[in-house]
Amino acid sequence: MRAAARLFLTRSFQEVGVDEICAAADVRKGSFYYYFPSKVALVRAVIDLHANMLWRALDSVEGDNAVDRLVGMGDAIQAIQSGFEERHGGLVGCPFGNLAAELSRIYPDLASYLASVLGELERRFAVACRAVADEGAWRPGIDPGEFAQSLNAFVQGTILLAKVNRASAAVIGRAFRSMVTMGLRDDIALRASV
Amino acid sequence: MRAAARLFLTRSFQEVGVDEICAAADVRKGSFYYYFPSKVALVRAVIDLHANMLWRALDSVEGDNAVDRLVGMGDAIQAIQSGFEERHGGLVGCPFGNLAAELSRIYPDLASYLASVLGELERRFAVACRAVADEGAWRPGIDPGEFAQSLNAFVQGTILLAKVNRASAAVIGRAFRSMVTMGLRDDIALRASV
Repeated sequence: MRAAARLFLTRSFQEVGVDEICAAADVRKGSFYYYFPSKVALVRAVIDLHANMLWRALDSVEGDNAVDRLVGMGDAIQAIQSGFEERHGGLVGCPFGNLAAELSRIYPDLASYLASVLGELERRFAVACRAVADEGAWRPGIDPGEFAQSLNAFVQGTILLAKVNRASAAVIGRAFRSMVTMGLRDDIALRASV
Repeated sequence: MRAAARLFLTRSFQEVGVDEICAAADVRKGSFYYYFPSKVALVRAVIDLHANMLWRALDSVEGDNAVDRLVGMGDAIQAIQSGFEERHGGLVGCPFGNLAAELSRIYPDLASYLASVLGELERRFAVACRAVADEGAWRPGIDPGEFAQSLNAFVQGTILLAKVNRASAAVIGRAFRSMVTMGLRDDIALRASV
């Protein structure tokens, strides 16, 4: 699974065959098919691997107030991308977004699976955005649920553009912070952007 | 080129071979290689085809003021996506974003080419955002160039999530408008969101 995760991230799902995954993991093809009926079955396990890493990272975000904790989610996502960047010599994109772009139309079931993971990420953003609302830090007119949805889209686009522009993962946390700041009350926004 | 554009959008670059493109276009393989040395050379022509369609659509955006013209750019992008949706029975994603996600790491030259097209889109957003600044419609603290960059990322993420969620293209213009509204002065924002 780890070998497949690496190969899918640094190349693409379709470019990498089962033979190559087995060679990289040093397992025989018979063993592969004992655990996974197909490459598509394997990619679901790879998605779970990445998702669990993401939920753990987001669960451990700390902060003195709701705004700091929301901004900390962007930093946690950046930290994961920085890890990929170090290991693979450059940004490789979001594991979910890459597969969604490449495979949504070819494997509708996989698209649903990816949609549920990305939906869970949005739900977590929404919880954090509602906490910001409870502390009264949003500008009037900002709906926490809608803001969470925008933030989710913004994160996907930011990582994709950083990848194609061969930028550093360091742009991700900064972009996230400036997007959050845009929704905050002016007096809070000034504090958060210092 | 049109056959390839359709096949790449509805499936993926890697899933579709030269044989299949030739069959769909009803041309012989010899003719294909007379015009294009490889599938990668063809995809550049396909990118140009999509880019020219996008620039034409954006050039024809009209509006009474800079805010309306900026919001109109989102509607123009939605109209292109609606066209794909009708022809292909569902959202197929951004032609540039799809290829960027799938191929950036495999073909670095193609990544640069896609980065330049997406950079031109950002440049056009920046021109429109500076016009909004000239009319004094942004909230204090909004930098037109940074906002254009955020908007570009937001559009990519919005289209990608709409595709994986099997949403309608109609979400794109609405999301674009709400993102722009977030940057506007409160009195202007109210007018634009009616």
